Amino acid sequence: MKTTDVLVIGGSAAGMVAALTGKSAWPEKTFILVKKQKEMMVPCGIPYIFGTLDSSQQNIMPVDNLLEKAGIESIVGLVVAIDIEKKTAKLDDGEEISYQKLVIATGSTPVKPKWLKGAELENVFVIPKDKTYLDSMNSKLKNCKKIVVIGAGFIGVEFSDELAKREHEVTLVEKLPSILSLAFDEELSTRIADIIVGRGVSLITNNGVKEIMGDGKVSKVKLENGETIEADAVILSMGYKPSTELALKSGIYVDESGFIAVDEYMRTHVTDVFAVGDCAQKRDFVTRRRVPTMLASTACAEARVAGINLFNINVIKTFSGTIGIYSTAIGDTGFGTAGLTENRAIEEGIAILSGVFEGVDRHPGNLPDAHKQLVKLIAAKYSGVIIGGEVIGGLSAGELTNVIGLIIENRMNVNSLLSSQIGTHPCLTASPAGYPLIKAAEIIAAKMRNY
Amino acid sequence: MKTTDVLVIGGSAAGMVAALTGKSAWPEKTFILVKKQKEMMVPCGIPYIFGTLDSSQQNIMPVDNLLEKAGIESIVGLVVAIDIEKKTAKLDDGEEISYQKLVIATGSTPVKPKWLKGAELENVFVIPKDKTYLDSMNSKLKNCKKIVVIGAGFIGVEFSDELAKREHEVTLVEKLPSILSLAFDEELSTRIADIIVGRGVSLITNNGVKEIMGDGKVSKVKLENGETIEADAVILSMGYKPSTELALKSGIYVDESGFIAVDEYMRTHVTDVFAVGDCAQKRDFVTRRRVPTMLASTACAEARVAGINLFNINVIKTFSGTIGIYSTAIGDTGFGTAGLTENRAIEEGIAILSGVFEGVDRHPGNLPDAHKQLVKLIAAKYSGVIIGGEVIGGLSAGELTNVIGLIIENRMNVNSLLSSQIGTHPCLTASPAGYPLIKAAEIIAAKMRNY
Repeated sequence: MKTTDVLVIGGSAAGMVAALTGKSAWPEKTFILVKKQKEMMVPCGIPYIFGTLDSSQQNIMPVDNLLEKAGIESIVGLVVAIDIEKKTAKLDDGEEISYQKLVIATGSTPVKPKWLKGAELENVFVIPKDKTYLDSMNSKLKNCKKIVVIGAGFIGVEFSDELAKREHEVTLVEKLPSILSLAFDEELSTRIADIIVGRGVSLITNNGVKEIMGDGKVSKVKLENGETIEADAVILSMGYKPSTELALKSGIYVDESGFIAVDEYMRTHVTDVFAVGDCAQKRDFVTRRRVPTMLASTACAEARVAGINLFNINVIKTFSGTIGIYSTAIGDTGFGTAGLTENRAIEEGIAILSGVFEGVDRHPGNLPDAHKQLVKLIAAKYSGVIIGGEVIGGLSAGELTNVIGLIIENRMNVNSLLSSQIGTHPCLTASPAGYPLIKAAEIIAAKMRNY
Repeated sequence: MKTTDVLVIGGSAAGMVAALTGKSAWPEKTFILVKKQKEMMVPCGIPYIFGTLDSSQQNIMPVDNLLEKAGIESIVGLVVAIDIEKKTAKLDDGEEISYQKLVIATGSTPVKPKWLKGAELENVFVIPKDKTYLDSMNSKLKNCKKIVVIGAGFIGVEFSDELAKREHEVTLVEKLPSILSLAFDEELSTRIADIIVGRGVSLITNNGVKEIMGDGKVSKVKLENGETIEADAVILSMGYKPSTELALKSGIYVDESGFIAVDEYMRTHVTDVFAVGDCAQKRDFVTRRRVPTMLASTACAEARVAGINLFNINVIKTFSGTIGIYSTAIGDTGFGTAGLTENRAIEEGIAILSGVFEGVDRHPGNLPDAHKQLVKLIAAKYSGVIIGGEVIGGLSAGELTNVIGLIIENRMNVNSLLSSQIGTHPCLTASPAGYPLIKAAEIIAAKMRNY
């Protein structure tokens, strides 16, 4: 039997970062990481294998390289059982590993709904973080002309845009009235939809999939309204579910939504067992409700908290809940969102005020590469605390979204934001006098004065 | 005599933003803004008139347009006297304006050192925010082949790069050992210097100007080490001094460095008189010492604080000191700095730890437009509070610098940063597992554990 101080199960972003941060915090301890495949995909890079990049080989996360440098042993294998009393894990090849501390980072798997007839037909794909599957999918897709993507979240939108670049005929189907609706309010999602359509994707909203049809192989998709669309292939991007079968059967408490229950130090109900990443329970930073939001960035923050606090409460810093900071790009337009949308805040019964300002991401706006930049901010009505923000702009939109993320994380209010110092430069940002983030806060401050 | 509730003197960024924010906070009050010229330049856009842009006409700040929309009267004129007892200001055409509240935003003027022999020769230029001067300078420079720029701060570096684009032979002279040395530590400034040189600028460091030579018109620049450089034109970018003669002669207290003394609400020593922007006293956010840092972004933050608090302490939010957030770009490389450099912190006797991490601003790094990204963070040694950061990367470096600015402004420490959520996207940012800002914080955290 192998022995280690810390065993990490899972070698995607969460597992890798938990191991690396843990080893950095506890250099005298031994670490083993077990992962299912030798080569791991950069999770958010997967859509780009299907257009921009030449192959999955360009999207490898250098896990083994980083682990080796840090002095962490890496094993390819599948953990089939955990004995939480004896503190051992059993691999599929029969080997057992005894641990002091265990970190479960088993991730998530794509949803293939049971009710969806035809989901098992040939050329119906989901999007797992699995190189072998993705390589096979990619070579099959290359022979397909008409591709239907079901579900217009970030992954569905990114896949559609990438496939359209390769000149497939792409139809993106969304059952809700607007795309990316968990991330953006309608005034922004409409603009994003226009861009997607402008790049050659056919977009169908307010109309979900009812059935996938075909004889062995997919030939058509039938929608809720009865219409059918021809399809040589179908990609289901209908969400992910936490991979927690191993935890469940090992007696580690899994909640009613299928996530491993954790506290703010990412500890499960079992002593010495942590869970991080997509498989671990999430709470919204603002509403404090459980949310199913799965993001590599959140996973990494959780993994750092677990890693630092493995052997005792080394740092009095807990994971404060999922803010949900996402961004993406279509061509030269970047989009991002952090915290709650206005819609979501209203659904949660939060009294809010919002402000929207549109400017330009260069100054003067005559500079080359200037791109319109729109920022929407959402604040709690009485305290003025910023609880959400959305951005459409050029390619700086990703880091601008991180500016908003930190504003939310620090629970800044509109007044402190108004006197915040923001560095600006003609070639890099909006102007100091017309910085859309500050102007949006000004609009909210003016509304607050009228109450 | 004209009468107004609020009179703002100065129509560049600080004056404009003070008037606009003030009017938004106090809509029932009347506002007049007096500015020296009809058309105001975007201050940070000035270098780009000399290369990227066609003319100064593309670098106009839409001051009158914004003031008119807000219902603020704009007057072109020069205020020649303020009577702080009677609360009136007198213009150069003899008109008097009576005010309740006065905001002085008279800005700064370029330094032309008295000791510098030859500074008055023809074709020796400084860089004021004055369209008429800049237009004339631009047309004269177009006929010059060899141009020497003295002073390698941000403006000197930007001018050199822009002029090199127009195929002038540009020599940039800096008396300190490295360029941009107030903003960047040597490991970063060396890289920036390499880029500048790679773009065709001749760089001379560790060697200041001694004398400008010529017969009527400049022909040579003599350096401290005795060498001479041929020059058809010389541009002095040797800093700016606050324009505070008006305040001084009106009995408003000006400090020993020539700045108008202000408190944290931007109030001067005279009741009902505020000062904002380059002419107003600055304190460093971290060291609390007076600093001469002049930035449009700082000016705008000060202007907002003054505007909101004009008639009473409307918002309990003061200006918390200059963080000094700057960024710039040379070609497709962006640089930024916020807070203290390591050098400056050491000079101030602050015990610090620093961390540097270099990664890539896309993930996977095989994506098009990927650019190396280096982040250096500086933290107080015992508390771990982040007091400075520097960035070299692609064009997202400007907003990433703002992320660091907010970290400093919120006095976050390395541990809170480690569990911060940072949104990441393949096409927009570094990877969540290798985000250089977080990795640099990890390096500091590891160092702290060893103390």
